[in-house]
Amino acid sequence: MKRPPLDSLVRRIGHPFNDPALLEEALTHRSAGSVNNERLEFLGDSVLSFIISDSLFHRYPNATEGELSRLRASLVNGEKLAEIARALDLGQYLRLGSGELKSGGFRRASILADAMEAIIGAVYLDAGFTTVRNWLLELFQPHFQALPDPELLKDPKTRLQEYLQGRRMALPRYEVTQVTGQSHNQRFDVTCTIEGVGHPFRGSGTSRRRAEQEAALNALESLTGGAKHDA
Amino acid sequence: MKRPPLDSLVRRIGHPFNDPALLEEALTHRSAGSVNNERLEFLGDSVLSFIISDSLFHRYPNATEGELSRLRASLVNGEKLAEIARALDLGQYLRLGSGELKSGGFRRASILADAMEAIIGAVYLDAGFTTVRNWLLELFQPHFQALPDPELLKDPKTRLQEYLQGRRMALPRYEVTQVTGQSHNQRFDVTCTIEGVGHPFRGSGTSRRRAEQEAALNALESLTGGAKHDA
Repeated sequence: MKRPPLDSLVRRIGHPFNDPALLEEALTHRSAGSVNNERLEFLGDSVLSFIISDSLFHRYPNATEGELSRLRASLVNGEKLAEIARALDLGQYLRLGSGELKSGGFRRASILADAMEAIIGAVYLDAGFTTVRNWLLELFQPHFQALPDPELLKDPKTRLQEYLQGRRMALPRYEVTQVTGQSHNQRFDVTCTIEGVGHPFRGSGTSRRRAEQEAALNALESLTGGAKHDA
Repeated sequence: MKRPPLDSLVRRIGHPFNDPALLEEALTHRSAGSVNNERLEFLGDSVLSFIISDSLFHRYPNATEGELSRLRASLVNGEKLAEIARALDLGQYLRLGSGELKSGGFRRASILADAMEAIIGAVYLDAGFTTVRNWLLELFQPHFQALPDPELLKDPKTRLQEYLQGRRMALPRYEVTQVTGQSHNQRFDVTCTIEGVGHPFRGSGTSRRRAEQEAALNALESLTGGAKHDA
């Protein structure tokens, strides 16, 4: 397989490298030589994770840590990176050893994802943090747009309150019905009662707050007939 | 337990917060309220991992990706973060729920480590990337100094060659003795022969290069009588 000139890849990547050797290194699989893309992949992985985490933190001011982690995992994973690499047609530019070439390594998701991380590392080394951040956020723009509406990630108690206020209904009342377990391993059972709604909703958790959130979520689901939100 | 004024903590942290509410949030365990340090911990974890990865990448220009990962894991882990938190005397400033207070949560490594990550996130939000980087690298300075000498992380073939040259000995000769397995799942066996040294050294790996590095490492160990370097 003859490799097309790198210019066409550089155009698609959208970053004109000051040091083209960095791009070459990012495209070199370990099967092709001792100077390969593994170190750049190490660097790119951590740049990527930080930039995406930071962006999610600001885009979702009401998301919990658990929700942020799930959102990040949906953006930063091998399949997503391979998808982005395929959109750049990266496979045909890779430098692979003869074994990998024969076995079609340029199509393999893990090799594409690793090279994509290495390119992120290379852009960072080439042009610094601000440049790599702007470039990456643009690259990920369509994937950010596919994420759930930040509004959906308001915590359930807030959403329940807004839902009820919007319908001029009474506000919910939360009550702890039972606490079991010892000191730092407690379990709270609560009910959420809404005047005018037949039965109370239950929730439990390792803190009063978590139990209340679960009860509120159950109330919301029952009132709206929707499924649990899963980011 | 009455909490001492935050000034003393701010002095030890060494970052004068523009927005002290961020520090307060970073010190608040989830047991103490619904506005707590979990989101800051999410952010701080990724800031920390990036800054340390970046620093290691430049400090160890000859380290492999595997070595860099091990070095990072030795700096960024719950025990190390708890140790840094203890050096700042962080425990006495934490805001914990009554259950955690009673059970001594302010001494627990995981709670201290989480709060430390949250403080890193808070410094980043308070003052930006350059400030948090400078501050963090200073905070980690003693821990960087405890890492192995970068020289030790030169790859074994290079180290073996330098060792032999320094003793005016013949350079090693590598030979592949066997290749087994199919295309992208191959195993290479090599020998490393050094003129004037009784027997050849063996190595094997998933690439010729890896097999040679292992053989070189075995040669080095035999010649120097040392143990395998484990970062």
